Amino acid sequence: MKKVVILGAGNVAFHLLKAFSEAQNTKVIQMYNHRKESLKYFERFTHTTSNINKLKSADFYILALKDDVIPEIAKTFRPVKGIVLHTSGAVGLTALHNLTDYGVFYPLQTFSKNKAVDFSQIPVCIEANSPENLEKIKNLGLNITTDVREINSEQRKALHLAAVFVNNFSNHLFAIGAEICEDHQVDFSILKPLIKETASKIESLKPEKAQTGPALRNDEKTIAVHLALLSNKHQDIYRLLTQSIQELHGKKL
Amino acid sequence: MKKVVILGAGNVAFHLLKAFSEAQNTKVIQMYNHRKESLKYFERFTHTTSNINKLKSADFYILALKDDVIPEIAKTFRPVKGIVLHTSGAVGLTALHNLTDYGVFYPLQTFSKNKAVDFSQIPVCIEANSPENLEKIKNLGLNITTDVREINSEQRKALHLAAVFVNNFSNHLFAIGAEICEDHQVDFSILKPLIKETASKIESLKPEKAQTGPALRNDEKTIAVHLALLSNKHQDIYRLLTQSIQELHGKKL
Repeated sequence: MKKVVILGAGNVAFHLLKAFSEAQNTKVIQMYNHRKESLKYFERFTHTTSNINKLKSADFYILALKDDVIPEIAKTFRPVKGIVLHTSGAVGLTALHNLTDYGVFYPLQTFSKNKAVDFSQIPVCIEANSPENLEKIKNLGLNITTDVREINSEQRKALHLAAVFVNNFSNHLFAIGAEICEDHQVDFSILKPLIKETASKIESLKPEKAQTGPALRNDEKTIAVHLALLSNKHQDIYRLLTQSIQELHGKKL
Repeated sequence: MKKVVILGAGNVAFHLLKAFSEAQNTKVIQMYNHRKESLKYFERFTHTTSNINKLKSADFYILALKDDVIPEIAKTFRPVKGIVLHTSGAVGLTALHNLTDYGVFYPLQTFSKNKAVDFSQIPVCIEANSPENLEKIKNLGLNITTDVREINSEQRKALHLAAVFVNNFSNHLFAIGAEICEDHQVDFSILKPLIKETASKIESLKPEKAQTGPALRNDEKTIAVHLALLSNKHQDIYRLLTQSIQELHGKKL
């Protein structure tokens, strides 16, 4: 049984607690956060502390913390044993270089507290300060997912950036879609099958090959009608993305 | 058995042929296109013609044609009987006003020839020149989907615009994600579970509530790192969408 301590109380900490608690060979023995109030929810599941000097002895310490806090914690925090991992896409492995055994455990997924996820399908990108630790981190990951991949800090940073495009920005486009529906008294639910298919298409087609729409067809009339319907701020987004689609596809035709 | 003639040979025509052919109470008795070569593929499934004056007698004539062509065809084409429908999101009902019985049959989905779709889950937006024709078009739709909705021309235009955001533009963001992966020698497949979850999240959360990421957190350090990694053209998109997320959420906080 591998003992895990999770530092943090945000979305990633929340979902990691759930995943490691449900796994057969891992146990979350403690959660830490500097704000006692943030630990309230977690008290029913495991031991909690807001005192960094009172961390229990464990096999893994997972820093599911804000990017800025990771190097700070790494400077002051000295576990007797155990591997210290951070979960950030954007922070390099070297942020933990003051420690003895360390690595990265980056689950490539979007987490919200009120949306359950199937952790077994989530790719976890790992990195470590030694081949031995890499092996241990890999085994830790395989308790909760089937997809553990070694990804270096540079690649992870790029992946995090790509994730912003495919997830954060796409989700914002869904929000704009919802706003347009609302403005015209149409139920947003009518767009859900389309959104589902948009994601499903790229399982079998490259995104480039899945592209359709007025920008690709260079349908100037429709583009003009759309621009006229939009508010100024959304016009800029429409123009820029239309142009970007045309550049990508013009280049390749 | 309702007889259907489809005009057009593009993605929508292709998928409508499939859906109406598989349905029990409808039959596609003919396909028309002005270019004979484009009909080659369809010959094995139904009768084809490139002569607009040789259309068979049918219950429905579906104009799955480019937006520009719809009003042109409507001016010259005179079926003896049957309802003439167009399938465009952007063209008003009135484009068909020269005809006697007409309406709109707009399937709100993205279609590519080499990607099968489950038509039964696709919302079809209908409109007609009379309540009687609306009822007939509704019944036609219910042969291939469970979701037929009356949507007027203004709403349909807005829906088409919303569809561009949630589908065309999101798909382009997936293409940018793929490009970033390629540039850093990471397999794009690693992003697929994230893309799937991005779409799946909005089944249970409003897009606004599903938002995560550096823009929402106002994580300036990560935003700066990301901008530095990007090419100029993608920097503009990153900046504009980050700003748009912050405006939306700033406003509502």
